[in-house]
Amino acid sequence: MTPLPSPVGQPLHLIAADEARRLLREVAPVGTEIVPIDRAAGRVLATPVFAPENAPRDRLSAMDGFAVRSADLTAASPEQPVPLRVVGTILAGTTFDGVVGPGEAVAIVTGGVLPEGADAVVMIELTRLPPDAPDAVWVERGPTAGANLVEPGEDFVAGAEVLAGGRRLRPTDVAALAAFGVIVVPVFRRPRIAVFSTGSELCPPDRTPRRGQVRDSNSYVLAAEIESAGGEAFRSPVVEDDLSRLHETVARLLATHDGVILSGGSSIGPKDLTGQVLGALGAPGVLFHGIDIRPGKPTVFARVGPKPVVGMPGYPTSSMVVFEAFVRPMLARLGGEIGVVDFPAPGRVRLGKAYEKPISREDYLRVRLVEREGEPWAEVVPGGSAAISNVLRADGLVQVQAGITRVERGEWVGLHLL
Amino acid sequence: MTPLPSPVGQPLHLIAADEARRLLREVAPVGTEIVPIDRAAGRVLATPVFAPENAPRDRLSAMDGFAVRSADLTAASPEQPVPLRVVGTILAGTTFDGVVGPGEAVAIVTGGVLPEGADAVVMIELTRLPPDAPDAVWVERGPTAGANLVEPGEDFVAGAEVLAGGRRLRPTDVAALAAFGVIVVPVFRRPRIAVFSTGSELCPPDRTPRRGQVRDSNSYVLAAEIESAGGEAFRSPVVEDDLSRLHETVARLLATHDGVILSGGSSIGPKDLTGQVLGALGAPGVLFHGIDIRPGKPTVFARVGPKPVVGMPGYPTSSMVVFEAFVRPMLARLGGEIGVVDFPAPGRVRLGKAYEKPISREDYLRVRLVEREGEPWAEVVPGGSAAISNVLRADGLVQVQAGITRVERGEWVGLHLL
Repeated sequence: MTPLPSPVGQPLHLIAADEARRLLREVAPVGTEIVPIDRAAGRVLATPVFAPENAPRDRLSAMDGFAVRSADLTAASPEQPVPLRVVGTILAGTTFDGVVGPGEAVAIVTGGVLPEGADAVVMIELTRLPPDAPDAVWVERGPTAGANLVEPGEDFVAGAEVLAGGRRLRPTDVAALAAFGVIVVPVFRRPRIAVFSTGSELCPPDRTPRRGQVRDSNSYVLAAEIESAGGEAFRSPVVEDDLSRLHETVARLLATHDGVILSGGSSIGPKDLTGQVLGALGAPGVLFHGIDIRPGKPTVFARVGPKPVVGMPGYPTSSMVVFEAFVRPMLARLGGEIGVVDFPAPGRVRLGKAYEKPISREDYLRVRLVEREGEPWAEVVPGGSAAISNVLRADGLVQVQAGITRVERGEWVGLHLL
Repeated sequence: MTPLPSPVGQPLHLIAADEARRLLREVAPVGTEIVPIDRAAGRVLATPVFAPENAPRDRLSAMDGFAVRSADLTAASPEQPVPLRVVGTILAGTTFDGVVGPGEAVAIVTGGVLPEGADAVVMIELTRLPPDAPDAVWVERGPTAGANLVEPGEDFVAGAEVLAGGRRLRPTDVAALAAFGVIVVPVFRRPRIAVFSTGSELCPPDRTPRRGQVRDSNSYVLAAEIESAGGEAFRSPVVEDDLSRLHETVARLLATHDGVILSGGSSIGPKDLTGQVLGALGAPGVLFHGIDIRPGKPTVFARVGPKPVVGMPGYPTSSMVVFEAFVRPMLARLGGEIGVVDFPAPGRVRLGKAYEKPISREDYLRVRLVEREGEPWAEVVPGGSAAISNVLRADGLVQVQAGITRVERGEWVGLHLL
């Protein structure tokens, strides 16, 4: 008969979710490069950007109207409008090079540079154009000095920090770079992460599985997740449950990448090889094996020098939760991002059913969003960790932290959108 | 003296925000292509994907343990464990090809295929291995028939819809494709959108502006926003305020792209040429010029046959709001996405100060998020539409819809994260 291996190995030594986060945060950016601003959105700024000049540079009109001397117009009223002589027009991109004298005005568009002599702009709606005098304007209410102007440096003073180092640039951030004439920027290099699945039961997706086999899907998901987190993913073929093949693969990939993520094989049992392999790669080695969370407990994290190696749980739900809550923030740090909230849940929703859990554990509920009477509710998606269907149906995750044992139905909880 | 053009043109005929959304939704996808699943995340599925087979295909063990015949174990208890003869072992990827007979068991890992004859799995924790009988196991509590199993089709039944057409694929959706052996998928083509800025006051970012000039930043921002919305952006040089040059440019770009977005020149005044140009391109022409929103009112939308042309307001804040609330959902439709919420605000935050507005208008507040006593508050970012600084400082947008005239301090409002 077949020899009987024990399916039970060493129990996991779970660490608290907060401690796992602390250890994962201790990775450092992988380097920098220069990119044109055309390709800067989504990248992480490596150094702060300071304003090289005031913005705006000049005193500008905030309105379509007339640049005037406010002292001329103190008596203006709709019944007794004050006539001014229009001595020029400032259109977009043009300036008026003369001086506005007493009794004079210059037509000006929004954003036009205020001409010398003028100290305010009167908006077009408070003026009338007399029918018989083409170069005159009547002002029905005078502006105070400084009215309807944008002052130099009102948006940014020269020397002020415009964008902080470590910020992941949004599309709108590019406006600040272009407006200041910054056409290339130093950004952190995208971390190059190798990814593969382990397990003798796995076959590639383009093969028909034999009985007992399943197709590898996790390496595809992880590669897409890594890319969505700002990394560059390099997918590698499935590795069977074999200590030396696994060791050789991780060591080889680690030599040519900034980190390695492998899927499956991290729970305790006859197939638990990841922990052994990661422990034998080099210092500091395994930093934790097992997090006190649900789902996602059998997660292993090691560092070899500065390079992270993560063993992800093989179940789709567990893998997704661990990626969003732990690996994504780690990759953000590896990509140079600063001030990343670990697991951002900026908005609140009402939880659709009461939920209980042990006090030490941190749980992640897969939820669907529904609106009821104008309020957002999060309905917990049923289904086990092994299923794919519940991952597809979830709109987001709700984190129930350690220290909490019960959330009541209808309680407001933080939502992390997927 | 300079001839005096009136800075005032025709007032805008504002349409309601809901009506603008309705008109923008009436664009159709631009075509389809086939991509490997490696590159499918972020793309929009062109046809639904159905399960070609049950998932799982076989009856699987949900636990590490022993496959057994439940009828053998009805009398099992910790005091009187029932001994079984272990006749095989099922490791990852292997099967047991015999039949489990009365009094027999097969060791099985989680995910292993249940062998013939067995009708349940007993979890390892409820068994003992007798010291003197290497091919025996003692069971301390018998499972009911069907216990600890995953049934065929439990995740997906053959023929069921796995992913709907029109869904933008998330990284985790790729799991379903790979697991079913789908290695290429039809997706909608990314809309190719030409983008440029108009305005005689604009110079390229790599030039030092003359007095009265400013650098073009909007075309860079819009290009990055278009890419972030799933489109392909093609940036074109600044066009001055000249009717025929503007007309020629839009017509030329429209011939070779799926749509055109231009920035600036859409408010009413001497520089309002966009409306005229878009009206002269072809049927159906201008669908609206002016939306009853703040900021972002001077937005113009035309269609030339199926192709959208959008004239964006030139101010950074206005442009960002109009892109997020109107153009992004339009581009999603153009890219084939179905069921897109127009302006998703799934979570709620408390508004940091009371806000009043006219009943017909829809407003968008730029907000920063702060947490106070465990609750998320949205503080309104000060600063005018012309500033860039307030766009950079905002974490999100809060929409105050038409029909609402006042939001109280502390009221829960929907948040759209930037």
